[in-house]
Amino acid sequence: MGAGSAKPTKTLSPGSQVLQMCDKQFMIDCGEGTQINIARMSLRMPRLDNIFISHLHGDHCFGLLGLLSTLGMLGRTRSITIHAHKDMETMLRPLLEYFCEGMTYEVKFNHINPSRHEMIYEDRTLTVTSLPLKHKVPCCGFLFEEKQRLPHMRKDMIQAYDIPLTEIPKIKEGADFMTADGRLIPNSSLTTPATPPFRYAYCSDTAYHKRLASWLQGVDCLYHEATFTEEFASRCKDTMHSTARQAAMTAKEAGVSKLIIGHFSSRITDRNTSLQEAKEVFENTILAEERKTFVLS
Amino acid sequence: MGAGSAKPTKTLSPGSQVLQMCDKQFMIDCGEGTQINIARMSLRMPRLDNIFISHLHGDHCFGLLGLLSTLGMLGRTRSITIHAHKDMETMLRPLLEYFCEGMTYEVKFNHINPSRHEMIYEDRTLTVTSLPLKHKVPCCGFLFEEKQRLPHMRKDMIQAYDIPLTEIPKIKEGADFMTADGRLIPNSSLTTPATPPFRYAYCSDTAYHKRLASWLQGVDCLYHEATFTEEFASRCKDTMHSTARQAAMTAKEAGVSKLIIGHFSSRITDRNTSLQEAKEVFENTILAEERKTFVLS
Repeated sequence: MGAGSAKPTKTLSPGSQVLQMCDKQFMIDCGEGTQINIARMSLRMPRLDNIFISHLHGDHCFGLLGLLSTLGMLGRTRSITIHAHKDMETMLRPLLEYFCEGMTYEVKFNHINPSRHEMIYEDRTLTVTSLPLKHKVPCCGFLFEEKQRLPHMRKDMIQAYDIPLTEIPKIKEGADFMTADGRLIPNSSLTTPATPPFRYAYCSDTAYHKRLASWLQGVDCLYHEATFTEEFASRCKDTMHSTARQAAMTAKEAGVSKLIIGHFSSRITDRNTSLQEAKEVFENTILAEERKTFVLS
Repeated sequence: MGAGSAKPTKTLSPGSQVLQMCDKQFMIDCGEGTQINIARMSLRMPRLDNIFISHLHGDHCFGLLGLLSTLGMLGRTRSITIHAHKDMETMLRPLLEYFCEGMTYEVKFNHINPSRHEMIYEDRTLTVTSLPLKHKVPCCGFLFEEKQRLPHMRKDMIQAYDIPLTEIPKIKEGADFMTADGRLIPNSSLTTPATPPFRYAYCSDTAYHKRLASWLQGVDCLYHEATFTEEFASRCKDTMHSTARQAAMTAKEAGVSKLIIGHFSSRITDRNTSLQEAKEVFENTILAEERKTFVLS
């Protein structure tokens, strides 16, 4: 929703993303104005049940109270889970009680430990793993991974051998098929390989650190903060952020397919410089933009 | 900054105003996204030292934490005073301590009692008075009044009688002037009447109530909420808001010069209906708009 960092500018507001994956929606971070950008984008979120907060700096969570409050006004009844450092609940609970009295749905908290690399969410189709980052406060990124899918059933084979629908789940799980006249058709003839599981990683905010790439090997798309350009390398180090070049280094070391950079400082007047510096290291880089939808697979 | 109410839409975000008066700036309410709109408008606020919060509903105060946090990041050193119901401090203090550690300036609170009609701020040039409103939680409007100014010194008289600069303050206070050759020039020949004090009133959120107009007699500009049109009169009553027509009734009864209506519900698809309904009662009505500057005098 927003591609900026702490200080808003004419074109950048604090960040938030909605990841649509496996027919679900996951919000990642929720800076101020997120619900406004959602409205401006006419974004519908019927399948948003989980919000992941990387760390407790304002530009990553000040939009949460407004969003949760509005979801209540819209009559939401399904619970929502906030995955965040435990202090998020300490800070947010009293506000929810005061400002959202009589809310129609439950806000749950899953306390995560940002310094651990572990699975923090799992459902039937995907998992989310925390990625410890190096920042001024406890902070982690998130790796969203589809689970291995079943192979595809070949439609031409269903017709050719008159396979009943009830047999298809078994064949997808690996069974062969016996025809009415007793011929055994091997599974390998009946299926095509499953679509490889999609993997998306979100890394903001962080200083460059070597270990990160080892957790990101081969992800399809990496979003990585690129708060500064090389011109501000010293400030970047002091504030424990990354330059566009450092984001690209991580992308290259991890061998990801695509890199999206964002979280630009208000000091960056021309984001093409960020893009250029990243592309010198990792060609398939694109810029995050305010209220933009990216189709990743 | 924003002209909407609780639920943001494609064109409306929650409200906030910056009133520039007597060379000072006063913020009134601070909904989510206020600091983003400030950045989008390239609004500079070197003379903002006071923020007035009408009531503790999210669309009137959820932008406060982000704004105060960003002012700190910009290195502000002068203190800022929040004039609000005491619960504002109870809610905000822990957040400021957690999210804005080591802030470079002090946030002060002036606890106001929204159910009382009294002066809550005074400086050399103006006063602010609370206006009790009828809403679901304690809520008040604000009347900003310039103090009576001194008469203008006539420049042609300074030349004609060779009046020394040191005499001018006395003449403005009402003294006559004695020329070098002993002639007494009466004060009435030396001055022209002072510019009448400007008065601005802000009333949001409130159900229509007769008494309000008595406090607003002859104000130059009244901003009044007009959440609904007549079509939603029943919902308007339930939620303790005003229709555009009711806002105009108050303006008419108070004999104000100009009415600005805002705080439009997301249900209002055509704000021209609001304008039309208000104008039928009070002709000099205009619509509040997102990120718009109004020159009032």
